[in-house]
Amino acid sequence: MHRTRVRVAEDALDANETIARANRDDFDRAGVRVVNLMSAPGSGKTTLLERALADLENVRVAVLEGDVMGSADADRLSALHIPVVQLNTDSGFGGECHLDANMVRSALPALPLAEIDLLVIENVGNLVCPAEFRVGEDVRAMVASVAEGEDKPLKYPLMFRTTDLVVVNKIDLLPHLDFDLERFQYNLDAVNPGVETLLTSARTGDGVDRLRRWLTAVAGGEGSASADRNAVGAPG
Amino acid sequence: MHRTRVRVAEDALDANETIARANRDDFDRAGVRVVNLMSAPGSGKTTLLERALADLENVRVAVLEGDVMGSADADRLSALHIPVVQLNTDSGFGGECHLDANMVRSALPALPLAEIDLLVIENVGNLVCPAEFRVGEDVRAMVASVAEGEDKPLKYPLMFRTTDLVVVNKIDLLPHLDFDLERFQYNLDAVNPGVETLLTSARTGDGVDRLRRWLTAVAGGEGSASADRNAVGAPG
Repeated sequence: MHRTRVRVAEDALDANETIARANRDDFDRAGVRVVNLMSAPGSGKTTLLERALADLENVRVAVLEGDVMGSADADRLSALHIPVVQLNTDSGFGGECHLDANMVRSALPALPLAEIDLLVIENVGNLVCPAEFRVGEDVRAMVASVAEGEDKPLKYPLMFRTTDLVVVNKIDLLPHLDFDLERFQYNLDAVNPGVETLLTSARTGDGVDRLRRWLTAVAGGEGSASADRNAVGAPG
Repeated sequence: MHRTRVRVAEDALDANETIARANRDDFDRAGVRVVNLMSAPGSGKTTLLERALADLENVRVAVLEGDVMGSADADRLSALHIPVVQLNTDSGFGGECHLDANMVRSALPALPLAEIDLLVIENVGNLVCPAEFRVGEDVRAMVASVAEGEDKPLKYPLMFRTTDLVVVNKIDLLPHLDFDLERFQYNLDAVNPGVETLLTSARTGDGVDRLRRWLTAVAGGEGSASADRNAVGAPG
């Protein structure tokens, strides 16, 4: 008799991985490419998106906005006349500190997948938990503000190690900070050698065209290989 | 027959509360007052402590340093020749996003409680999870960098609601930002009316004397009442 062994999923992260794959399958079937955009609170994710998505040509984009509470960011992005869906994580006690695959799955019916090429999932502002939970994305991007200091890759290594792009934002503040860009790059190389970086200022618009080109390339199918390479569960 | 009902602790937060009370009892017995210092990543907590603790007169202080990984901040503070104990939370997969009462309890034997008046617990940089876990503190303080934007009290309400002090840091950057201090105060009042605020620049030293006076007052016994008022489990 042939017997098949199926290992029972052991924990929440396994369950999350199962649902993330289901999300990814749904996105693939619809031909939608998905970016999981992460950062610390106040790094400028939403302002960057406002700038970059406003002039994104030939790419039909939607945003899934994750916040503990409120819809201020979703309201801002709705002004771009693109589909924006808000996910709030505050049903728990103090709120969940990240999106997980099941939360994203619950939002799928509200997303016009057949009508878009690219979905940007703006995660909850947090450098720890979001890195642990795949949500079905093709690629991961994170924003690091120069105001946060150059030591962050060493203090939050999983986040910086599993991302496919590091957007170094608020570079207009560099003359007013002690931030050492070379030291930041050195620290980043220590946890994620060769990861792509972009320098931007969401405030002045500097570098936003490069982010726009990166998003357009993702929408066109680039990035999957690195997303697989950087699988969360893979050895460092 | 007289019967006593004891409700069984139901979840991790209950267990945490039990251990937090045990920590608090130990601190009280030793005559040590405890500040739980929280913020987003890169708000300047450590630099503020370096400045404020360097010239803290008549208060014997120690620091318990919480990080996912590494000991860079603890190393910096050790230069002040005060007791510094490092707690790393990376035993989990991507690391815990906060300190909890049991982690702090595990550090108690390493702390010279009989020889200090004040313990500052520098929590993991995160605006969500640390607010949910009491660790045995008398008072809570948080640092909000003006570079993070004025909307943060509305997006992370539990953190801003349960703190006894909001240190608004990096005010030297105000001329270079669109940050609206009045709007920030308005948003803060919406979630924690009347909470004490201090404006500081850890970089220039501006306002650090006020933080030093606040820490000295805490060491002298002020703040407990508000800590109880702001108990995490209390209704908003």
